[in-house]
Amino acid sequence: MSSTAGQVIRCKAAVAWEAGKPLVIEEVEVAPPQKNEVRVKILYTSLCHTDVYFWEAKGQNPLFPRIYGHEAGGIVESVGEGVTDLAPGDHVLPVFTGECKECAHCQSEESNMCSLLRINTDRGVMLNDGQSRFSINGKPIYHFVGTSTFSEYTVIHVGCLAKINPLAPLDKVCVLSCGISTGLGATLNVAKPPKGSTVAVFGLGAVGLAAAEGARIAGASRIIGVDLNPKRFEEAKKFGCTEFVNPMDHEKPVQEVLAEMTDGGVDRSVECTGNINAMISAFECVHDGWGVAVLVGVPHKDATFKTHPMNLLNERTLKGTFFGNYKPRSDLPSVVEKYMNKELEVEKFITHQVPFSEINKAFDYMLKGEGLRCIIRMDG
Amino acid sequence: MSSTAGQVIRCKAAVAWEAGKPLVIEEVEVAPPQKNEVRVKILYTSLCHTDVYFWEAKGQNPLFPRIYGHEAGGIVESVGEGVTDLAPGDHVLPVFTGECKECAHCQSEESNMCSLLRINTDRGVMLNDGQSRFSINGKPIYHFVGTSTFSEYTVIHVGCLAKINPLAPLDKVCVLSCGISTGLGATLNVAKPPKGSTVAVFGLGAVGLAAAEGARIAGASRIIGVDLNPKRFEEAKKFGCTEFVNPMDHEKPVQEVLAEMTDGGVDRSVECTGNINAMISAFECVHDGWGVAVLVGVPHKDATFKTHPMNLLNERTLKGTFFGNYKPRSDLPSVVEKYMNKELEVEKFITHQVPFSEINKAFDYMLKGEGLRCIIRMDG
Ligand SMILES: NC(=O)c1ccc[n+]([C@@H]2O[C@H](COP(=O)([O-])OP(=O)(O)OC[C@H]3O[C@@H](n4cnc5c(N)ncnc54)[C@H](O)[C@@H]3O)[C@@H](O)[C@H]2O)c1
Ligand SMILES: NC(=O)c1ccc[n+]([C@@H]2O[C@H](COP(=O)([O-])OP(=O)(O)OC[C@H]3O[C@@H](n4cnc5c(N)ncnc54)[C@H](O)[C@@H]3O)[C@@H](O)[C@H]2O)c1
Ligand SMILES: [Zn+2]
Ligand SMILES: [Zn+2]
Ligand SMILES: [Zn+2]
Ligand SMILES: [Zn+2]
Repeated sequence: MSSTAGQVIRCKAAVAWEAGKPLVIEEVEVAPPQKNEVRVKILYTSLCHTDVYFWEAKGQNPLFPRIYGHEAGGIVESVGEGVTDLAPGDHVLPVFTGECKECAHCQSEESNMCSLLRINTDRGVMLNDGQSRFSINGKPIYHFVGTSTFSEYTVIHVGCLAKINPLAPLDKVCVLSCGISTGLGATLNVAKPPKGSTVAVFGLGAVGLAAAEGARIAGASRIIGVDLNPKRFEEAKKFGCTEFVNPMDHEKPVQEVLAEMTDGGVDRSVECTGNINAMISAFECVHDGWGVAVLVGVPHKDATFKTHPMNLLNERTLKGTFFGNYKPRSDLPSVVEKYMNKELEVEKFITHQVPFSEINKAFDYMLKGEGLRCIIRMDG
Repeated sequence: MSSTAGQVIRCKAAVAWEAGKPLVIEEVEVAPPQKNEVRVKILYTSLCHTDVYFWEAKGQNPLFPRIYGHEAGGIVESVGEGVTDLAPGDHVLPVFTGECKECAHCQSEESNMCSLLRINTDRGVMLNDGQSRFSINGKPIYHFVGTSTFSEYTVIHVGCLAKINPLAPLDKVCVLSCGISTGLGATLNVAKPPKGSTVAVFGLGAVGLAAAEGARIAGASRIIGVDLNPKRFEEAKKFGCTEFVNPMDHEKPVQEVLAEMTDGGVDRSVECTGNINAMISAFECVHDGWGVAVLVGVPHKDATFKTHPMNLLNERTLKGTFFGNYKPRSDLPSVVEKYMNKELEVEKFITHQVPFSEINKAFDYMLKGEGLRCIIRMDG
């Protein structure tokens, strides 16, 4: 039992006071974990586009002040009542979507959308009492997707924590807690490209490149990367992309360009942009008869997916996924093992590192489209 | 070799001279089959909604004068050059979509959308020479979907004919040549409901009831029929429907009604209406995490399928199918065998019979939503 168990912990957290304004490192109070909750010391966190979207709050409901962050690795500091699966000292990856192990989704083989713990971007409080565990001078600071990892300590529902191999380096595997697993799983678990097939990946950020990596692992023979940002193309070669298309270089819709390159369409496509036009193109570029398109990007709240129903009738399949259909507690430990066994490289996704005090730099890199993942060291 | 082989045949056909106007029984000339073509004596044909849509030509490109009809059973009269799979006397079911056995679709296990012979509702001529085989006083009459079964004799590409068991009664199994196989296959081959699951069927015409029958065969425990026409509900009980919803009886969208009835959504839905709103409801009524919606209805040419992309991201799957994903030549003979083995009842789909001279009555029944399939006896 750590000496801090049951006590309020005062520590540093990066607070977003307003939409789109730089985070401010503040001293916050972190209350002890309640029933089914765990307090985690975060050692490394990284920035994912989903944090940026909700921080910008352009197409999303604003909720401030808030502590963002959901891609991270840490160590259990203390556990609340009823927590038996985790103990202080365990190495964990927080996940934005949870697994209660009891609901119909958790019991289904197909779904990872736990009824209790699925992502809820509008909730800024803990389930147990509808309150936040973070405060500054008694004023609550909201949580984000149940993880809020931009804090030295955070409180997380036990169902949103994957217990992983303690030998796994947290400064590397922290990126498996969201983006990389999402892209990898979108291809391996959902799109399932047959060996020798052609896969298009829309958006070559970390999620899209992980999707490309999944296509490479599955044995796809052509992997076509699509991005508006040509800076992404050089990097993408390391992730198995064999060809590139920039929609800006063409007058005709990119789905037509892809159909011409592939004699009627790609076998699989994975959309990792969050842009609605890319979603529609990703669907319409798959081959009729057998093509499967998988949507991963988080859309603007007012977005509408539109297509002619004949595109569906022509035997195309359209799906979406959260977290690559991995069940966080059941499946994520094995993704970490894939890294430990060298089946999966994560280093190539990590292009920047900053100390916690410079967390706003990570936002700048992402906004400029520079690099893939920026690791934020909490002790810095 | 029949005495008519190689000769023009004069026979009766029901010609649609204008959109929406009653068909007129005319004497037509039917040219001999050319390369890869077969001339078939039609014994029984039935009316499917797709005939009615293109005859009404409301949301479709008009092409007149034309001989409609694509659900039928007949006997090969003569074959053209290069036809080796069929011989005079063979019993066949014509199919609106074909199987060349050579293209990428025919070679794929997933697709039945043959590149050469897939449905083309805008083409009114034969592939071999771009001409019609039907004429009246030298003026060509257009074909419909390569079948034109509202004629005592018709010419069909060999790839659009399934050779079936000669013991199968053509006045019954003719309905397997389109609607019934389409609905059955949409459920069994595409939606694939697990045993004990809940299935919604939108549209309780012959296609929808065959989809319900497929759900029953697959072991679904709840089969919810949705139709605007309450006359359909009594009949639908014979096809395994356990519950009914008329969208007109509710203020809220039918997808919400279904979600309330099923604790969040049905496991599978099959849309068999052709109405775009029904297509959207059929998609949005499936359960997140694992729900699969299958579109079967032929949409209006200006229809747009619209939904919020979060409905997809929440792990729903949307698909469409032609002819229930059956490959006509390879798979249809085994559907006929299902009837012969009494696994499948087709009699209950046949609610009316008319002689050929009264073919317009079949149109009236369908337009009034009376009954399911009306068999048209060509010798009458
Ligand atoms: N479904 C999930 O579980 C899940 C999990 C994590 C992230 N996400 C989402 O995945 C998406 C990608 O995340 P990321 O961290 O890789 O972001 P990122 O910003 O690093 O990468 C996105 C890329 O998409 C490109 N892009 C934008 N619009 C485009 C268009 N119209 N056509 C082609 N390319 C376009 C950008 O140039 C960029 O390179 C985001 O929407 C994020 O919110 C979803
Ligand atoms: N994809 C294919 O291969 C294929 C093959 C055959 C038929 N079809 C299509 O399948 C559909 C059904 O054919 P059918 O012969 O059974 O037609 P039908 O007219 O006998 O049945 C259609 C039923 O849908 C109902 N309906 C219409 N709009 C509705 C709505 N908004 N909500 C609920 N119910 C509604 C009607 O009341 C009717 O009972 C048609 O669109 C037809 O063109 C497709
Ligand atoms: Zn993320
Ligand atoms: Zn659960
Ligand atoms: Zn039909
Ligand atoms: Zn073919």
